[in-house]
Amino acid sequence: MTNYRLTLAYEGTRYRGWQRQGNTSGSIEEKVGSTLSRILGEDIELHGSGRTDAGVHARAQQASFKTASEMSAEEILSALRQYLPEDIGALSLQEADMRFHARLSAKEKTYVYRIWNSETPCVFRRRWVWVLPDRLDIAAMESAAAQLCGKHDFSSFRTGKSNKSAVRTVTAIELERRDKELWLRFTGDGFLYNMVRILTGTLVEVGQGKRSAGSMGAILEAKNRTAAGITAPPQGLTLWEVRY
Amino acid sequence: MTNYRLTLAYEGTRYRGWQRQGNTSGSIEEKVGSTLSRILGEDIELHGSGRTDAGVHARAQQASFKTASEMSAEEILSALRQYLPEDIGALSLQEADMRFHARLSAKEKTYVYRIWNSETPCVFRRRWVWVLPDRLDIAAMESAAAQLCGKHDFSSFRTGKSNKSAVRTVTAIELERRDKELWLRFTGDGFLYNMVRILTGTLVEVGQGKRSAGSMGAILEAKNRTAAGITAPPQGLTLWEVRY
Repeated sequence: MTNYRLTLAYEGTRYRGWQRQGNTSGSIEEKVGSTLSRILGEDIELHGSGRTDAGVHARAQQASFKTASEMSAEEILSALRQYLPEDIGALSLQEADMRFHARLSAKEKTYVYRIWNSETPCVFRRRWVWVLPDRLDIAAMESAAAQLCGKHDFSSFRTGKSNKSAVRTVTAIELERRDKELWLRFTGDGFLYNMVRILTGTLVEVGQGKRSAGSMGAILEAKNRTAAGITAPPQGLTLWEVRY
Repeated sequence: MTNYRLTLAYEGTRYRGWQRQGNTSGSIEEKVGSTLSRILGEDIELHGSGRTDAGVHARAQQASFKTASEMSAEEILSALRQYLPEDIGALSLQEADMRFHARLSAKEKTYVYRIWNSETPCVFRRRWVWVLPDRLDIAAMESAAAQLCGKHDFSSFRTGKSNKSAVRTVTAIELERRDKELWLRFTGDGFLYNMVRILTGTLVEVGQGKRSAGSMGAILEAKNRTAAGITAPPQGLTLWEVRY
């Protein structure tokens, strides 16, 4: 058996997200997993570092899988590049320690949320940004972002109910103007379902003056989804990096 | 009457090119012209700085039109942004001198041809590049490019027959490596039908070692399309800038 670590880029526009959902098709996990199974001639169980929502992109998603095949990494990678659709790219494939697991071994993840913050039409990047020309108070957003960093129960920033712990550590939320874009870069040990998008929506409401920068503590304490802001649209979000 | 200069960006993927062709629809000229006519309530004759081929993009195409309407430039621009599809963006609209004509007044144009020159899959920029992982001899391409600059009869670099003069002045062809991409930047007083794409295809053949860098003079002298290289695919080409 060989354990592999696979790095993938994808444009999520056409997909139902990373995770296979029951028997429905259209997930990236299913597309890559079934392509690998066909190449290797055995059922491949593919583990992603985590889910990305429908419509969310990945610059470098990580996945792992084991195979008894004796094909070389180079051959598998070349076949993957041949058979995957053009909106899913196999960036690299490396042999990994047998204990390596893309999700369980992950230490930290970075997501980038891109806002096209201009009246000028966005033609070329429109599939990867949230078009939002409103004037945003960046200083207020940065102040609010600072209060969200640290180890907290992020129940207010999760969609759906769950008995699983909502405690996560967000190590950094950095805002950066890049010409007409505003980038929000979130780094943490893990993120709940829709969490980055709800954090973004809430920070944007602070930027628009709809919420005070000082209200983040109260939202966290509420442990209730209705206390936080909107869920920002999926296409602005990209899984940027996973660290092990 | 007011004469306007309109700056447009577009992703050419879905279109038959800039120019209206008889009664068929699907050209960018027709889309923008009919939108303007609807907004201004009169038949608008739109003049682009020049054609772009089917599938070719524009970062800043220039167009001009006259109108008797008393709407302000700001109102017209705002309406254009509302009604144009998301792959055509009205970047700016300015009042121009009555003698200004986007094509006849143009002094110089720059086109950029982008080659994705890597084995690594191109996921996010795939609509705007020619994917060509071959090893390219950049020095040989630069030497060939230098021989193509200047005032020449470019009949060998034009698709189709025409009695019109094929003499053009190419002031610069610059090659630049940008990470996995190779950019070819062409500047000149005007370009014939398919000319930038044939220049690119010919330079690529030099880079691949299929032609010698020194053969450009002979191709120009032949004044025959068959003497030059292939026509590079349209999606790699972007009209970058028009100067007046």
